[in-house]
Amino acid sequence: MRLAMIGLGRMGANIARRLMKAGHEIVAYDRDEKAVAGLAGDGAVAAAALEDVAAKLEAPRIFWVMLPAGPPTEDTIATLTKIASPGDIIIDGGNTFYKDDIRRAQSCAMKDLHYVDVGTSGGVWGLERGYCMMIGGETEIVRLLDPIFDALAPGYGTIPRTVGRDGPDDRAERGYIHAGPAGAGHFVKMVHNGIEYGLMQAYAEGFDVLKGKASEHLPEDQRFELNLPDIAEVWRRGSVISSWLLDLAAIGLAKDHTLEHYSGRVADSGEGQWTIDAAMEEAVPVNVLSTALFARYRSRVDSTFGDKLLSAMRFGFGGHVEMPQ
Amino acid sequence: MRLAMIGLGRMGANIARRLMKAGHEIVAYDRDEKAVAGLAGDGAVAAAALEDVAAKLEAPRIFWVMLPAGPPTEDTIATLTKIASPGDIIIDGGNTFYKDDIRRAQSCAMKDLHYVDVGTSGGVWGLERGYCMMIGGETEIVRLLDPIFDALAPGYGTIPRTVGRDGPDDRAERGYIHAGPAGAGHFVKMVHNGIEYGLMQAYAEGFDVLKGKASEHLPEDQRFELNLPDIAEVWRRGSVISSWLLDLAAIGLAKDHTLEHYSGRVADSGEGQWTIDAAMEEAVPVNVLSTALFARYRSRVDSTFGDKLLSAMRFGFGGHVEMPQ
Amino acid sequence: MRLAMIGLGRMGANIARRLMKAGHEIVAYDRDEKAVAGLAGDGAVAAAALEDVAAKLEAPRIFWVMLPAGPPTEDTIATLTKIASPGDIIIDGGNTFYKDDIRRAQSCAMKDLHYVDVGTSGGVWGLERGYCMMIGGETEIVRLLDPIFDALAPGYGTIPRTVGRDGPDDRAERGYIHAGPAGAGHFVKMVHNGIEYGLMQAYAEGFDVLKGKASEHLPEDQRFELNLPDIAEVWRRGSVISSWLLDLAAIGLAKDHTLEHYSGRVADSGEGQWTIDAAMEEAVPVNVLSTALFARYRSRVDSTFGDKLLSAMRFGFGGHVEMPQ
Amino acid sequence: MRLAMIGLGRMGANIARRLMKAGHEIVAYDRDEKAVAGLAGDGAVAAAALEDVAAKLEAPRIFWVMLPAGPPTEDTIATLTKIASPGDIIIDGGNTFYKDDIRRAQSCAMKDLHYVDVGTSGGVWGLERGYCMMIGGETEIVRLLDPIFDALAPGYGTIPRTVGRDGPDDRAERGYIHAGPAGAGHFVKMVHNGIEYGLMQAYAEGFDVLKGKASEHLPEDQRFELNLPDIAEVWRRGSVISSWLLDLAAIGLAKDHTLEHYSGRVADSGEGQWTIDAAMEEAVPVNVLSTALFARYRSRVDSTFGDKLLSAMRFGFGGHVEMPQ
Repeated sequence: MRLAMIGLGRMGANIARRLMKAGHEIVAYDRDEKAVAGLAGDGAVAAAALEDVAAKLEAPRIFWVMLPAGPPTEDTIATLTKIASPGDIIIDGGNTFYKDDIRRAQSCAMKDLHYVDVGTSGGVWGLERGYCMMIGGETEIVRLLDPIFDALAPGYGTIPRTVGRDGPDDRAERGYIHAGPAGAGHFVKMVHNGIEYGLMQAYAEGFDVLKGKASEHLPEDQRFELNLPDIAEVWRRGSVISSWLLDLAAIGLAKDHTLEHYSGRVADSGEGQWTIDAAMEEAVPVNVLSTALFARYRSRVDSTFGDKLLSAMRFGFGGHVEMPQ
Repeated sequence: MRLAMIGLGRMGANIARRLMKAGHEIVAYDRDEKAVAGLAGDGAVAAAALEDVAAKLEAPRIFWVMLPAGPPTEDTIATLTKIASPGDIIIDGGNTFYKDDIRRAQSCAMKDLHYVDVGTSGGVWGLERGYCMMIGGETEIVRLLDPIFDALAPGYGTIPRTVGRDGPDDRAERGYIHAGPAGAGHFVKMVHNGIEYGLMQAYAEGFDVLKGKASEHLPEDQRFELNLPDIAEVWRRGSVISSWLLDLAAIGLAKDHTLEHYSGRVADSGEGQWTIDAAMEEAVPVNVLSTALFARYRSRVDSTFGDKLLSAMRFGFGGHVEMPQ
Repeated sequence: MRLAMIGLGRMGANIARRLMKAGHEIVAYDRDEKAVAGLAGDGAVAAAALEDVAAKLEAPRIFWVMLPAGPPTEDTIATLTKIASPGDIIIDGGNTFYKDDIRRAQSCAMKDLHYVDVGTSGGVWGLERGYCMMIGGETEIVRLLDPIFDALAPGYGTIPRTVGRDGPDDRAERGYIHAGPAGAGHFVKMVHNGIEYGLMQAYAEGFDVLKGKASEHLPEDQRFELNLPDIAEVWRRGSVISSWLLDLAAIGLAKDHTLEHYSGRVADSGEGQWTIDAAMEEAVPVNVLSTALFARYRSRVDSTFGDKLLSAMRFGFGGHVEMPQ
Repeated sequence: MRLAMIGLGRMGANIARRLMKAGHEIVAYDRDEKAVAGLAGDGAVAAAALEDVAAKLEAPRIFWVMLPAGPPTEDTIATLTKIASPGDIIIDGGNTFYKDDIRRAQSCAMKDLHYVDVGTSGGVWGLERGYCMMIGGETEIVRLLDPIFDALAPGYGTIPRTVGRDGPDDRAERGYIHAGPAGAGHFVKMVHNGIEYGLMQAYAEGFDVLKGKASEHLPEDQRFELNLPDIAEVWRRGSVISSWLLDLAAIGLAKDHTLEHYSGRVADSGEGQWTIDAAMEEAVPVNVLSTALFARYRSRVDSTFGDKLLSAMRFGFGGHVEMPQ
């Protein structure tokens, strides 16, 4: 199939390349002309503007937008809805908030345009491993786009099949699902990231406990100097907690067992927060997911005002003094 | 009554003074001779050693030990059990772990000694306001000591009576209870402190949210510069969250609304941890109490190893770089 | 002053009564004619419709809206903005989300109307104790309304003054503050409720640990049968954790020490959730406040789907069977 | 090598079988004679009592104890220390608390016996996949036992090697480590299980949010009926959160997408609690690990006393009634 890739950052460019490898044709556009030239060198058709993108596609046009969530995506899609003709398809493959998808799909429907949201996981490894995709949109449109998703997905690979699965739809086993109407793709991806935060924090806390076992505050016969890279490595083999995140932790620890070159200040993208919001709308308790998010907030400040207020109260009732030397 | 006060730190000395004001006689002992002399100046009988303490009391002797928990208390009580005669009473008024009380009471019983544990709350304010006391021990012995507890307790004061209370035992309304056998006093005091941590952290987080509302990261029309001392003050008046801890927070904020002279590193004494241990033995979920304790641990380090491991994983899957500039 | 009270539920009627006691005149309106008649019997001027309310006030008219948050308040204020004349004042005294206040104040300003939001705490006790109020709006308008707030507030009362407070503005000490522009009042009230959830959960967990100490799963010499009503009572006297919420807990436990007539399913109003939202917008960690909210969500379901998924995983790796008998 | 397997439950029998397959000789003992006969049928030497076990081994004897933690293991090891001769080796392969290992190793050392603790992960899958092992004990003894560990471990398999690893010790890459002195093996295994709880709860909460998205309490255009088995399946393919636990979740959901045959009451073994204890000894914050444990406690009761106390307080300040219909 022929489709446009709008936004040629690392994710967009890699997705385009994986599609071209599978025989699809890409009309490539980015504000950065060098990025366009780069992809044209790999076989893509270069476009100079969104209008040019439209001109170089045939009806129904397929626009895959792969830009940072927020204004860049919002503005581009707003422009595309003006340029596009009835029947055309706009795909948002970025990290959009799912309620924005629901709203945009409604706008698009009023102009006979089709809106599809694709949450992708796999990060920088996707080009090689394939992308895990969670897709929202109209059923026929998602079916129509199937060759694209099939080409991007990891496929069966060597992963053992899940015992007990059956039914005619094997897309999940090949690495992508049609999750539901517009917004459902990004919703599932959002929860995926919320879980990711929780998993990561579980490992983080566990390794903290392992490291802390060497603390001088413990009685000497209760201290262990544990080899953290070896522990991460051994858990990759047959243990209950083996995972891809653990593989990455093992790589990080193998490279530098002290992790000293990291600042300890950890960013979060929006999905963690949105997951908590969704949970609160549903009245679902998410203690692990929220605490994982809050650990990142906490990591980014030296101390909180609240900590100081604790000290002020302690001083008030007990005369405890917790001030800098 | 005549009793010995062993340990004349701030707590021990103030308790002794409040008892003497009420007409009780105190035999005072501390390793620090100046402390003994100070209290003797207020009317106490000075003692030069534990044996001397015993000599200056009459059977049944009452030894009130008011020392830091752990070895100082443990060693002193071990010595007293050798010095004491059958029928004598040893009171531990410190912050002892309740399982140590259970063990000690069993040892004492084998020598016909009586062991009483008293958890006290009120901190530096107790001399003036009276001490809230939670007492463990044999029923007759606690009854026998009643004049002492009565003198130390705040009494009815001006606090409104609880609607619906009745029954012949008004000790709780006067500020002390016989909680149960040895250990029960310190157990209740331990949970008291666990709750204290939770309450303090709730205020701390709330004030953090208030302060954060001025953050430059928020849209300008969504920012408020709130007056925290005034907010603490107004909540003292008729609000659902008025409390003594809030009074202390208000004092702290009135003195310095930035709390800049506090380091933000917050200590914890053992009771918070013991409360979590007790909850785990009972399989009772204590998310607030534990998270309040962990916030203090976190306050005492610049960053955790776990935070850095998060960054290492993030680098692994997304190429995110979270290193110091 | 003369003002309208729109909404004569428990809160609205009590506020109106407290104002009339202080000499203010109330024009009373509610959809429920009986409620209007009831307040008229206490001296209020009855109104039959919002237009009638407006007709019975003089410029600048003061409309105090005291209705459930959401559509009832939203619709009434929308109507009032049509009825009102330039210079009139609309007060929302309910539990409105502060961002709605910001939006409404902007709409009102375009019509030269003044919008004031008042967060009130004190619940059913306010009529007697006075209401703790957190007010958002324009400085001159809040000043103009001062006689109303002064009459509603608890005043100095017998509460000890906070050491170290000074300055010319004593409103906080009398029980109300001008927190900032429109929305600031409800924002502070929102955080107040967030803290309230945290405080309540801290007590809840502590009493759970006390009660659990009688569990048959513990070794017999480690069990205590504790008297919870007495413990709540004694902590009211001189302890660090005394508070109004503890007073209420003591009342509840005095009435029924088993609390058996409660279902254990605990509702939450919106403020707890909004506080978490605000914290996430500010990137402030609020582990206690969130966990307190989630405990309520959890209390309202028998078991979560997540719990069952845990069992499914446990069955998968260990052959553990966790099914109903 | 020839060694004894004491305890022929599922774990012990499978370990023995895997060892025999690799050419090792097993002296098999269990209180249950049928279990002994069963393993003898597979080629093991049957023993009738612990003394008989000792008689059928040659110096230095190797006793692998594979019994439930607590009294069964404790008593057996106590007996073995009497039966064994200087130089003999006792291995505890169960789920023992690491402090018990430290203590036992000290006792053994006084009798010139060697004590080795082996934490194993892999559950019912170990026979086929191999066991991930974390080993504590003296360096030479662990080296001497290497053929045993090598035979039990999964080996390199098809798992991609961790980039950046080097050094002469490849045991971690083959699935076992010598973690440190006695106790270190079970300590690392304990933290492993603590992490496991956290990981599981992260998935549990995420799937709860997915399921809750169909809630009737949400606006109709914000609801999604998501296919949970498909979502679990697709995340296995190239997503950041792929893991063995997710594989198991996918199996469970494929079998029954409602999970209705699970009770929702989730057990915990001791390691989760011990991990929190260890963290508290080290003053390491473990919000995720603790909250995961507490979620299991909470799953096992219909409602907590604390929940009812919340209702009692709510009734107290707001007149809210939360009672059963």
